Amino acid sequence: MQERVFNFNPGPAVLPYEVVQEISENTVNFQRSGIGILETSHRSKEFLDILSQIEADFRELLSIGKDYSILFMTGGATTQFSAIPLNLLPKDKIANFILTGVWAEGAFEEAKKFGRVHAAASSKDKNYSYIPKKLEISPDCAYLHYTSNNTIVGSQFKTEPEAKGNILICDASSDIMHKKIDVNKYGLIYAGAQKNLGAAGVTIVIIRNDLLTTIPENLPLLMDYRTFAKNNSNFNTPPVYAIYVVSLVLKWLKQNGGLESAEKRNIEKAKIIYEAIDSNPFYLAHVEKEDRSLMNITFNLADKNLETQFFKEAEERKLIGLKGHRLVGGVRASVYNSFPLEGARELAAFMKEFAAKKG
Amino acid sequence: MQERVFNFNPGPAVLPYEVVQEISENTVNFQRSGIGILETSHRSKEFLDILSQIEADFRELLSIGKDYSILFMTGGATTQFSAIPLNLLPKDKIANFILTGVWAEGAFEEAKKFGRVHAAASSKDKNYSYIPKKLEISPDCAYLHYTSNNTIVGSQFKTEPEAKGNILICDASSDIMHKKIDVNKYGLIYAGAQKNLGAAGVTIVIIRNDLLTTIPENLPLLMDYRTFAKNNSNFNTPPVYAIYVVSLVLKWLKQNGGLESAEKRNIEKAKIIYEAIDSNPFYLAHVEKEDRSLMNITFNLADKNLETQFFKEAEERKLIGLKGHRLVGGVRASVYNSFPLEGARELAAFMKEFAAKKG
Repeated sequence: MQERVFNFNPGPAVLPYEVVQEISENTVNFQRSGIGILETSHRSKEFLDILSQIEADFRELLSIGKDYSILFMTGGATTQFSAIPLNLLPKDKIANFILTGVWAEGAFEEAKKFGRVHAAASSKDKNYSYIPKKLEISPDCAYLHYTSNNTIVGSQFKTEPEAKGNILICDASSDIMHKKIDVNKYGLIYAGAQKNLGAAGVTIVIIRNDLLTTIPENLPLLMDYRTFAKNNSNFNTPPVYAIYVVSLVLKWLKQNGGLESAEKRNIEKAKIIYEAIDSNPFYLAHVEKEDRSLMNITFNLADKNLETQFFKEAEERKLIGLKGHRLVGGVRASVYNSFPLEGARELAAFMKEFAAKKG
Repeated sequence: MQERVFNFNPGPAVLPYEVVQEISENTVNFQRSGIGILETSHRSKEFLDILSQIEADFRELLSIGKDYSILFMTGGATTQFSAIPLNLLPKDKIANFILTGVWAEGAFEEAKKFGRVHAAASSKDKNYSYIPKKLEISPDCAYLHYTSNNTIVGSQFKTEPEAKGNILICDASSDIMHKKIDVNKYGLIYAGAQKNLGAAGVTIVIIRNDLLTTIPENLPLLMDYRTFAKNNSNFNTPPVYAIYVVSLVLKWLKQNGGLESAEKRNIEKAKIIYEAIDSNPFYLAHVEKEDRSLMNITFNLADKNLETQFFKEAEERKLIGLKGHRLVGGVRASVYNSFPLEGARELAAFMKEFAAKKG
């Protein structure tokens, strides 16, 4: 493992070392079939077994009941920004949004193309540095959409917003399965896989089955959730490889104590880095304490002139991908499920030394 | 290589052995970056280099001029069935289709949702066993759509249909880059990558730039070709890994003499198998001689009762994935660009021996 670095990239992001090793071995010859996983037919027994197993593992890890379907789609969360209003926003209703960052705004803007929308809350007034607690949900609400973790600013909902009986929809692209949640509170949860679950190229959609009964006709075939629900996500060729990678990550999660253990590890990693920030006026956290993300930890150097040097020395120490998003600047340490604890410790140690030297 | 079999699957399909080896090596540590290719950011220099190189290689291999854009999308060819009429079929025009098989019919049916359509020709009368030569293009034609190779029945256009000045659109999912074509004859060419170009999860779209100027507003963001054209196919997270695999296949094609050599190899492989069919009344080809595919070779056993035994003995000889599509039955040998010549020889030898034993 020596040759690998600590990869803080926000997505595509680090995978467990055991997982990339297993992928590597199965690329030339998958399960001794004589065919590599990339070359395996989506109608083969091998792939149908992966599809069954991955669904079973999602259901087990998140306690998902039979009243929900689990779909494997493509096009990332951005495709869902269109698919959700196309499938679930009738003309006589209004889609409600909580605007907590760039991706929430993206979902809001896209929905405007297909129906009426309402901003139930926004933290734009303070550059999205907090999670709004008070919602004003409109009458005739079709659904309430929120983004559980905001990758760019580094904020996160600690618990579901109160939907007041309305259908709750969550973009969980950057924190799905970082802890156990109660899926029954949701109408739909979606997530691109490339942050917390695996490789770019597959999007997970968990949808309550009753929502499949009111979809209008004549949607683009692969934007209609029923196409995936009726065909076990195998209508046309699915992204076989990306689904395979997610299946290995779920297996790894199960082998490592499930989501309760994942949550403990995530809290521990974040605590180490936030302590390194808060214990030294050399560093300034971006987000209000109670709303800080466990996944994307954002901060600035009090003296911004030292930033370039900070990134340079971090890279020399094999701490890679720490540059913040261009919209926020500063530093962002993305520490998803698969990110190792020792990487968090190494970053904290580096931050302390760098501050001592330059502060 | 001994452990590998001959993989005749119709897609996802066989990749060159050198390519799967290179992928395997770069899965744990990509180009000594300390990060595996699956974990590489879509904003990293490494991936931006792949995107530049893959575009340059497409342009070189197919002689594509600057008046065309090359887009990397997701959702397979089926997503294009919707995207093409959404982007390119105005209300006052009619989309024309040549119906040569299941996928052509799929594109035709999907377009009906979004505008007016016309069947310019069809070979349904004879179970799609030939390519219709005579077209009746409607007035006010928006575009003429055809499927260059029909994976299921095993037929293939030997040259472009005569579009009579109309925009020609081609679904080349199962034969793109099997030979050099004149891209300038086309308005748009699209292809899922999982047959002739790489892994499932990415779709190539080659579009003439003037077609980008008449796209209507308010399409789903990731169905609008401009989203990809304006953002170098890197608007939201693209399928990094699938694009990487295609880049390696293009490199392999270049190292092996480009498309002229690929065509020669494809003709040679197909000839060996068709001769094994035609030289023995034990086997019956499905498609009329002049319209037979170089990519998917379909035939039946004269005595269908021997089919099960045929597949069993073929598998024992490491000839895998020969079962025909359920709609046609019989045998289908898919021998795309990456399929090795020795596999075609092995199949022909087996067919001869099997017929001698059972015939």
